[in-house]
Amino acid sequence: MIKVVLLGAGNVATHLFNAFDEAKNISIEQVFSRKESSLTSFEKKTAVTTSLENLKEADVYILAVKDDAVKNVIEKIQYKNGLIVHTSGSVPLLKSAKNNGVFYPLQTFSKNTAVDFSKIPLCIEADIDENLALLHQLANSISNSVYEISSEQRKSLHLSAVFVCNFVNHLYSIGEDLCQENKVPFEILHPLILETARKASVNSPASVQTGPAVRNDQKTIDFHLAQLNKADYSKIYTLLTDSIQQKNG
Amino acid sequence: MIKVVLLGAGNVATHLFNAFDEAKNISIEQVFSRKESSLTSFEKKTAVTTSLENLKEADVYILAVKDDAVKNVIEKIQYKNGLIVHTSGSVPLLKSAKNNGVFYPLQTFSKNTAVDFSKIPLCIEADIDENLALLHQLANSISNSVYEISSEQRKSLHLSAVFVCNFVNHLYSIGEDLCQENKVPFEILHPLILETARKASVNSPASVQTGPAVRNDQKTIDFHLAQLNKADYSKIYTLLTDSIQQKNG
Repeated sequence: MIKVVLLGAGNVATHLFNAFDEAKNISIEQVFSRKESSLTSFEKKTAVTTSLENLKEADVYILAVKDDAVKNVIEKIQYKNGLIVHTSGSVPLLKSAKNNGVFYPLQTFSKNTAVDFSKIPLCIEADIDENLALLHQLANSISNSVYEISSEQRKSLHLSAVFVCNFVNHLYSIGEDLCQENKVPFEILHPLILETARKASVNSPASVQTGPAVRNDQKTIDFHLAQLNKADYSKIYTLLTDSIQQKNG
Repeated sequence: MIKVVLLGAGNVATHLFNAFDEAKNISIEQVFSRKESSLTSFEKKTAVTTSLENLKEADVYILAVKDDAVKNVIEKIQYKNGLIVHTSGSVPLLKSAKNNGVFYPLQTFSKNTAVDFSKIPLCIEADIDENLALLHQLANSISNSVYEISSEQRKSLHLSAVFVCNFVNHLYSIGEDLCQENKVPFEILHPLILETARKASVNSPASVQTGPAVRNDQKTIDFHLAQLNKADYSKIYTLLTDSIQQKNG
């Protein structure tokens, strides 16, 4: 049985709590949050606290707090014996701390959408082999997709995630804008969006690039640019078209 | 029974052929292609021809040829009595021709991937009501998702599709590049890619925008920009970040 204390009460903490709660070999000893009101949904199921000085004993302390707060919280709970891990994609392993690791679930979480944790990649890292072994055990109990990822690798994963998630979503929202302008239901594009994503997860995306840019169809490109009446959308169209053409020679 | 002649032998034609072939109320009378070698996969199942002058009688002639060729082929087969439709997102309804329509499946097709046509949106348009009714019947026999879309609306759908499919795929390929540079398996990002697409098909994408840009996290943005060593990737990062921030005030 791995004893866990969870620090944080946001999206990531909530989804981790639910996954750990269902896992047979994990016992959630306590949930911490600065805000008492955030703890109401947890206090029926486990002990809660608003003080970092009252943390219970555990094998692993998991920080699911804002990136900015990670370092500070780790330093404050150094008095504990257990392994302390954070869940941030952008914060490196803290070399100064002892029993220190990373437990980064690479997914976008929404508060009200249930997630199947077994399919979520967990990127783990630890200061020493013994701690890494413990993280493997913890990660394997909720996910089938566990990767040892260094801080350097995690940096590039986090950056890639901005491109394939945040920026992609913005392109979806531009598509939605263009549909609204012309009174076309955006839902017509849903199957295309889903299929494009599915394709990219069974092929190298570069190998399945389609569209006017990659086939050098200047007539269609000009026709599209003439339709765009927002300056930043035209710039995005031109820049991405150039980038596709540059990549494909 | 609706009699159909299919003109073209590429991806769209092949997938349409398979869908029509399974539909009970549709009979594929013939497939046309200029190249004899392209017809081998069809000739076991129906009549084939390489000549536009030898087309059989049909209720609907469906052109699944290159955009550039659409107008020319329509003009050449005006001697036929049936309704002539094209499948292009970017070519308007030809006002000069008679019995003329559009049958545009909004999806990205790959040669070797089977598709479930029942979920593919079909955008239809016709010169007169009688022809529109025929296209409804034809479309409903293979898809549950049929929309009457004007040429003006189709123009904006086609443009939107470039953003949500072609440009999105390029962002996936940038993510793949960044992973490769740092020896991280791109597959770690697959669940994120799929979930981001799923989210956008159950929410307004603008309402679920996440990431450093929308939360004005300049520290992370600077950190990411410092990591990018290709000029066009840096430009894309900056432009999309600015565009997200502009949209979200």
